[in-house]
Amino acid sequence: MTAPGKEKRLQHMTEIKAMLFDVFGTVVDWRTGVAREVTTFFTLHGIAGDAHAFADDWRARYQDSMEPIRRGSRPFTRLDVLHRENLLATFAQRKIPIGGIEGGEIDELNRAWHRLDPWPDSVEGLARLRELALIAPLSNGNILLLTNMAKRAHLPWDCILGAEAVQAYKPHPDSYRKTADILGLAPQQCLMVAAHNGDLHAARAIGMRTAFIPRPREHGPGQTTDLVAEQDWDFVAGDFIALAKQLSGR
Amino acid sequence: MTAPGKEKRLQHMTEIKAMLFDVFGTVVDWRTGVAREVTTFFTLHGIAGDAHAFADDWRARYQDSMEPIRRGSRPFTRLDVLHRENLLATFAQRKIPIGGIEGGEIDELNRAWHRLDPWPDSVEGLARLRELALIAPLSNGNILLLTNMAKRAHLPWDCILGAEAVQAYKPHPDSYRKTADILGLAPQQCLMVAAHNGDLHAARAIGMRTAFIPRPREHGPGQTTDLVAEQDWDFVAGDFIALAKQLSGR
Repeated sequence: MTAPGKEKRLQHMTEIKAMLFDVFGTVVDWRTGVAREVTTFFTLHGIAGDAHAFADDWRARYQDSMEPIRRGSRPFTRLDVLHRENLLATFAQRKIPIGGIEGGEIDELNRAWHRLDPWPDSVEGLARLRELALIAPLSNGNILLLTNMAKRAHLPWDCILGAEAVQAYKPHPDSYRKTADILGLAPQQCLMVAAHNGDLHAARAIGMRTAFIPRPREHGPGQTTDLVAEQDWDFVAGDFIALAKQLSGR
Repeated sequence: MTAPGKEKRLQHMTEIKAMLFDVFGTVVDWRTGVAREVTTFFTLHGIAGDAHAFADDWRARYQDSMEPIRRGSRPFTRLDVLHRENLLATFAQRKIPIGGIEGGEIDELNRAWHRLDPWPDSVEGLARLRELALIAPLSNGNILLLTNMAKRAHLPWDCILGAEAVQAYKPHPDSYRKTADILGLAPQQCLMVAAHNGDLHAARAIGMRTAFIPRPREHGPGQTTDLVAEQDWDFVAGDFIALAKQLSGR
């Protein structure tokens, strides 16, 4: 894939008024964070098992659980609810009995997704990018999840957007289109930043600019997907700090 | 009105997980800010007139313009749109011809509401309150308006909530109830902070805690409304810094 010329990139940058970020995998390391909380839960309740494998199984249900909502066969339901359903299904799949565990403790584990740590460059990179444009998450996470995460990890968002604000899950086109509309912007004035080619593909399809940031350890040491840019995205950078440098020309 | 006992107040405080703020008048001084931008616009276009009186007339249309939406006879429409309709109506009312002025310049004046200055205590007070609970606007302002305002004025919100997020204008009960729901909280875990007795009345009616902060210059030197607490609100404080001290017991 050829990177776009500097002139074209600078022309795009002058148009960009908002940068919208995928969060799980792009801004934060969900796998390590969820496995950490699963480990605590397993220890507390005397459960044997591989916490990383459990985290992978829990996350593997993520896309499918949103599909009925994208198709319109289930009303919009926030991600905290879907995460909890997926958590119970993961316990069942792995034949882990949880009958004796209080619902409040399951809720607490479910909120592991509110307590994920950012990648090492995320906070500084976002702070730099925030000087160039309005920055907000465009995540499938619900508002409370993203707010708690930001407060704990000091992510300097200008506002919290995402699926709940527009009642549509990525990659449904409404999720991108309605987010631009909230910001009073045309799609080409928005830059979608993600570690996932599919997310950028959907954002580009409705006219947004695109930036790919590879996160080759999102899925752990054996990751095989999203290692490289699969289209000629408008920007490709090694991390958020490099993206800020590229966009500011400094 | 009797202030609640210290014990009752502290008991309430331990329950409060989120503080929700009215914005126009409570956090920012809309009248001075709008008059400042009207003055600039009048000067630029050679219009004679009292900018503060114009600001008052523009704002006087605010409540009525939301009424059809509260009643359900108009679909939810964000405040930027209502503000612009009200602006054109104010020009007409005052017989100010604007036929020769470009739409973009009207839009720019309309965005005066995005560029309002906070009261002197607001930024420091919010920073202190943010250490005690999640803080967010629960304003009739739309998300972009509140986001631009926060970025310019350094208001340290944890997230931007309000009418647009819940598609309901205060004081409709849905605006309060659905905001608590987004935060995963019962109403009594939320503290509504406002300079307006009516706002607190509606918040209390659905079970929220209430804090009154008088802003006796919101409407200029001749203000006659909302000078004092008209019910026994849970908390009454002179400004946000005093509220933070009261809530933290420090």
